[in-house]
Formats: sequence, structure tokens, C-alpha cells
Amino acid sequence: MARPTPLSGFPEWLPAGRIVEQHVLDRLRRTFELHGYAPVATRAVEPLEDLLRKGETSKEVYTIQRLHDDAEAAGARERQLGLHFDLTVPLARYVLENAGQLPFPFKRYQIQPVWRGERPQEGRFREFTQADIDVIGAEDLPFHFEVEVALVMAEALAALPIGGVRIAVNNRKVAEGFYAAIGMEDVEGVLRAIDKLDKIGPAAVEETLLAQGASASQARACLDLAAISGADARVADRVRALGVRSDLMETGLGELVALLDGAAAADAAGTIVADLKIARGLDYYTGTVYETTLVGHESLGSICSGGRYDSLASDGARTYPGVGLSVGVSRLVARLLGTGLVSASRQVPTAVVVAVLNDEDRPVSNRVAAALRARGIPTEVSPSAAKFGKQIRYADRRGVPFVWFPGADGAPHQVKDIRSGDQREADSGTWEPPAEDLWPQVTGR
Amino acid sequence: MARPTPLSGFPEWLPAGRIVEQHVLDRLRRTFELHGYAPVATRAVEPLEDLLRKGETSKEVYTIQRLHDDAEAAGARERQLGLHFDLTVPLARYVLENAGQLPFPFKRYQIQPVWRGERPQEGRFREFTQADIDVIGAEDLPFHFEVEVALVMAEALAALPIGGVRIAVNNRKVAEGFYAAIGMEDVEGVLRAIDKLDKIGPAAVEETLLAQGASASQARACLDLAAISGADARVADRVRALGVRSDLMETGLGELVALLDGAAAADAAGTIVADLKIARGLDYYTGTVYETTLVGHESLGSICSGGRYDSLASDGARTYPGVGLSVGVSRLVARLLGTGLVSASRQVPTAVVVAVLNDEDRPVSNRVAAALRARGIPTEVSPSAAKFGKQIRYADRRGVPFVWFPGADGAPHQVKDIRSGDQREADSGTWEPPAEDLWPQVTGR
Repeated sequence: MARPTPLSGFPEWLPAGRIVEQHVLDRLRRTFELHGYAPVATRAVEPLEDLLRKGETSKEVYTIQRLHDDAEAAGARERQLGLHFDLTVPLARYVLENAGQLPFPFKRYQIQPVWRGERPQEGRFREFTQADIDVIGAEDLPFHFEVEVALVMAEALAALPIGGVRIAVNNRKVAEGFYAAIGMEDVEGVLRAIDKLDKIGPAAVEETLLAQGASASQARACLDLAAISGADARVADRVRALGVRSDLMETGLGELVALLDGAAAADAAGTIVADLKIARGLDYYTGTVYETTLVGHESLGSICSGGRYDSLASDGARTYPGVGLSVGVSRLVARLLGTGLVSASRQVPTAVVVAVLNDEDRPVSNRVAAALRARGIPTEVSPSAAKFGKQIRYADRRGVPFVWFPGADGAPHQVKDIRSGDQREADSGTWEPPAEDLWPQVTGR
Repeated sequence: MARPTPLSGFPEWLPAGRIVEQHVLDRLRRTFELHGYAPVATRAVEPLEDLLRKGETSKEVYTIQRLHDDAEAAGARERQLGLHFDLTVPLARYVLENAGQLPFPFKRYQIQPVWRGERPQEGRFREFTQADIDVIGAEDLPFHFEVEVALVMAEALAALPIGGVRIAVNNRKVAEGFYAAIGMEDVEGVLRAIDKLDKIGPAAVEETLLAQGASASQARACLDLAAISGADARVADRVRALGVRSDLMETGLGELVALLDGAAAADAAGTIVADLKIARGLDYYTGTVYETTLVGHESLGSICSGGRYDSLASDGARTYPGVGLSVGVSRLVARLLGTGLVSASRQVPTAVVVAVLNDEDRPVSNRVAAALRARGIPTEVSPSAAKFGKQIRYADRRGVPFVWFPGADGAPHQVKDIRSGDQREADSGTWEPPAEDLWPQVTGR
């Protein structure tokens, strides 16, 4: 087999990179669990018809097929399956399938890969890991969960070694009420145009709106609304100062301010800010929408997005509203590793390599290692009874901080910090490495 | 959307089941990391040609295709991709791709789903999670790693709430040397026949061997060898007592006894036993082979298998030998959950639900929850300010042990153990639940 080359769009990391990724996933999981979110994992596949229900995403789906389905079997075969392109469609199906056995409101987190058959480009992958939280209600879902999920994510992201994030929030009701009040009927069309503001600029968005049939003053009003941002209730005043009146808009402003107040009460006022240009193209959002950027890396785009949807799923008898947020873990980790912003202190879990004096004495080294592991210290035994210099290099090449030397003929054991060269007597029943050396440390620059 | 039904062969669990599965995965991971195995995750797809290199598995592969690849594009499209059906083929590719940056011997663990387009049946899935450890050498790999991986797995499985396991081991060199010495040339044919011993019985295996051209005494000798098992060096004596002499067989017996000695030195003599009928059909094993059964659930088949292969991969310049073992986690968890052998103490991570006195006081409850979480106690706030009875039911339905009542108008806070009814004053800055209530407990029956 010739040396294989990477597949574009399918990222993989060396072990030290995977240690960073696992650290990110572990931290996210811990925060989600501290907030009581229950774990769910769904199968990788869904019936194609369910994946295509949102028409706009149909281009992105990978279908799967058994290699040895012959043509005849293919005609009669079970309904076609595709790989999920997000964790929301599977959640909707899971909720309907298990509705009788899930307690509502149902809070779950889910950390899994998803697949999209998109053209690979920087920060956009064909396979990537998402970490989602959602709260699903049966028939109704109180607004305060729209505050909660933002605060959980702010806390989860703050626990990562990534510097600051900015969770920009908006409320669909504000935009929809505003657009309707100024006589713009194609609300979705306007949202799609506004969604491009950061990418193409206000002049081009204005052109788009005019081409959609907006008058000059309507287009101007839409852009004025989109230009408003802020971290407190004055945001609502600035919207009202545009002179447009709408009950739906007022409901939305009330929710938006309540979210900002909730952020302030949780000391997250600097992290969660209102930004009225956040549109989120997808048409199923009905309340708060969220987009998150990594401060200093805004070009990366949103690393955590989501919103409120009044109908995640419906089985005819009941409708299930929800609100959720999704972290694009692979995109985030790719940036952290690619820029050297975050790194692992070593490329193996091992804190100690136990040297082997000679091949017959391997059982002695095995016993030392077992004693250290029994006290939770990750330990390997040297693969060979080579000269000590070579055994130390085995540890050094992996970034392992300590090498243990069993004493020959009853002599005391010694442990060496191979970074400082410091070497001292030690007992495998009591010695401990410094806490920061016990497991690989993942730290930001 | 009508209520969906499960897809046969694609198992999913309710949250309490997922908590059990995560517990199993966490425990396996911790043991692997304590032994210094580094984490690796590979993409879900491999080029189809790499997946089909082992011809016999070609029937099991799922291919993937972008939905909107049209016919013309399909002709010119990049080489076809399939979902990996194990974690060994991806490991071989990963090792070759990154050989220059990996330190050898390279120890890695990998926990991921795999896919096989097999006919679903009990304990056999189309999507399932594997947890693998392997040690890969560059050009050579000392025998002691064949002992190590068995001991790591014995320790990992012993840390699960599953009762006893039996890791049955054999050595290919014993069988190959023995068969050659008695004049059986089609070693693989004999191995395939012996592999069916448990399924079809000795009489049918004898018939198969005779049909393959074996003489009656040859067939008898093969069955006599396969009937031998034991936990110590006497196993080798029983093999030699069959009267067959072979250098290769002697090498294999030496390794087999060394493995049993290693197990005894690690107090795993009762777990790791030699069983000369373990054949492992796959032709790439060259040394120790392993199969593991759950004691009392032998009908489930092997839950953890693997072996030594002298050539995991080769890039022309170098050959990479390896030894590894793979746990079939989904099969194991399905049995544990299906038989009620193992269960989680609750279906959410939450240890405490903080009651809400009335909607305006939600911030008070939020602060209590934040104080508890800051000390690592998983806490939710009640979704509504309903009557306390209803808020207690919210906790009870999820199995949450404690409900916290913020004191109205400066009165002291109280916490109630809703299992015993015991209620007492508490301070959110100091109160702790009993250690066994902090996180969901996963326990065997």
C-alpha cells in the first residue's frame, strides 16, 4: 500500500490533537451534565425522506447503500437511508419515537459526528463533530429556556481554553413584526437578504431588497434595524426610536430584553449581546436566535448557533416546541490546533515510564506500574531493556515527564523528572507526581 | 410525521440506557489511558478499495454517495468511499499516513461506531460501537505486548459492572506447526473448520475435515488438539503428549505459556485461559489470538476479540506488525440493558432540582443552582413555579434524589431527600449530597 493521503473535508488529528479535542468534548459534556442535560446518542442514519423534509439541505446529504445490493434487490429494498447532516432532525425523530417514555420538558445533550456532502473549504468539513443541547417541550415550552440554553453555552464555552466568545442574539418576533408593520410581506426573503450583511455589506443588501420589490424607505428601515446592537434594555429603545409599532415586535423586544437581563444576572452581560442583524436563514426559527463568534477569530464564522422553534416535531396529536444550540467542535478545534492557540502538554496519557533493568526483570517493572496505576497514575513500562539513555528517550519523545528506575538487587527505587533532571528515591506505594503532571494539560497560549 | 419506528440493526437507548453505555465507555477509556494508550479518532469513511482489500468482508460494506451527484459527475468523481466496518483498517491507513510523526511502538485506543451491512439478528447490529486497543511496531514488536494487551483488557473489563469474563487465548504458531507436522497442508481450511467447533460440534467438524481430504487419524489429531484447555504450563505438556513434534509449535507453546505466566503474575490466571480450539477465522493473525465471553452469557458469543498480526500495514519501505483487541460495546450494552443486569440510578445527571417559589423569584433559584454547580453538584431549576407537589414530581419522574426549597422572605433554605422524605435546613455554599448521589450510579444486579 502506498502512503495514503488525507481526504479533503474529513479532518483527523495526531494523538496530541485528539487529546485537545477530547479535552474540549469532556469540558462541554461536564457543563451540560452539571446543568442536568441527559445524554442521547442516535444512529448515524435516517430515512432519506426525513432528511429531505427541509428541502434546502437536500444537496448536502450522503446516502448509504450496501455494496452487494444487486439491482433486483435494490428495487424492493427497504427505504433508502442517508447520513444525518445535523443532530436536530435525529432529535425530532427520537422525540417522536420515544415520546411516551421521555419526561417533558426534556433536556438532552448529544455529541456526535455529522456528514454533509459540501464542497470542502477552510473551516467547512464533510464530516465534523457537533455538540448540541436542546430543551423540548410537549405542546408548550416556557420562554425562560431561551435564556437558559444561552447561559449554559456561555458557561460551557468559558470553560474551554479559547479566550472570549460573543454570543449574539436576536428575536425573530422583532424582525417579523417590524417587517410586517412597514409593509414587507416576504419576511423570509428579507431575512435571507439581511443574513448576508456581514458577507456582502449594506449596499449590496439594499440592492437585493430593492430587487425584491422593497421601496427605498423600506430597504433603509430594514438596514437601520439590522444596524442596532447592545447589551442592555436600551437596545429596545433604539428599535422603538425607528418609529415602527407592532405587537409582535413588542413581544419580541420584551423577550430580547429579558434574555439580556438574564445574562446580566448571571454575569454574562459581556458575552451575550443583542445584535439585530442576526437573521439565521432557516425558516423554522420562531423566537430567539443565536450566533457565536470566537473573539479575534470572527472570520471563522459562527462556532455555536441555534434558536427557538415552535414546532420541532409533531405527531398529529402533539406538537413539540424546542430551543437549542449547537457547537461546531471540529471547526473550532481545527482553528485552535491550526493556529497553535491551544496545545496538549504531551502526546500520550502517560505520566511515568517505568524502566526495565533487563528482560528477566520486566515483572518487577510491571509491579511498579500496577502500583502506580492503582493510585490513578497513568503509567507505561518501557518496551525494551535497552540502555537507560534509550529508555529515557522513549519517554522524552512522547513528552512523558517522569522515568522510574526500579532498584537493582533491593536498592531503593528512584524517579527522575526528565525535564529538570531531578532524580530522587521513591516508593511506588506513596509517590505522586505534581497534580499538573498527572494527566496531559491542555492550555491556551 | 407519523410516529417513527426503530430501524432494525441500528440500536438506540433511552437516556438511562445511554448513561449505562457512557459509563462503560468512560471506564474502558480510563483503563486504556492509565496504561498510556493514546487516543485516536479516524474519519468514518475509507476509500472502497482499501475496505475491500480483505476480500471476505466485501459483503458487509456500506458505500456512501452524495445525493446530488449526477450520472456524469459520478463517472468522473473521486474514488468511491465506504463506511469503515472495523477500526483496524482505518488504523492501518492512519499509521501509514502519519508514520513519520508517530512514535513507535505506538499504543492507541479508539472508540467509535462502525457499520456492517449484515442481516440484523440478536446481538448483531448494522451500526455498533467498538472500543479497540492496539500496539503497533515499526518492523518489530516484542512478544510481551501480546501479554500486555490481554492484561489491559482483563483490567478494563473487570472495571465494568458485568460480572466475570473469560479471555480464551491460543497461538497460531501452535496450530500451524501442529497441522504441518501431521501433514495437513491447508492450514486455513483446518482453522476455518475448527472455528465452527462450538457451533456445529466435533462430529460435524470431523466430517468437514474428512471432506477436505484429511485422513481419519489426521482429523482425530486436529480434534484432540482443539479439545485441550487450561490455565497454566500443563497445557503445553498436554499438547506435547499428542506426540507431534514441530519447532513452530514449540515456539507457539513457549509464547502461550509465557502469556499464562504473565496472567498469573498479574493475578489474572482465572480470567485468561488457554483454549486450543480458539481459531479466529481471519488469515492475518500470526501469533496469539483472543476471544472473550461474558460468564453466564456464553451464547452472546465473543464480546472482545483480536490477535497478533505480523503485518498490519506496509508501505514498501517498512512493515508494521501489531497486536490488538476490540470490545464490541453495543452488543455488550444491549445484553446488559436487555436482561436488566445493569441499570442507572436515574435518567438525568441532575442530583438536585431547585424549586421556584413564583415566577418573579426564578433568579433566586438560579443563584442557588449556580452555587451548587460551582461546587460540582449537577443541578436544575424547576421549569415552572407550580405547586411544590408538582415540582417534586418533576424531580421524582427523573429519579432526581433532592429538591431544594429557597426560603421565602429570608427564611432559611431547605433541602429534601424525596426518597426518604427527610427535609432539613441547608446552605447552598456548603451543602453536599452523599457521594453516591452526586452522579448517576451504574450498578450490576
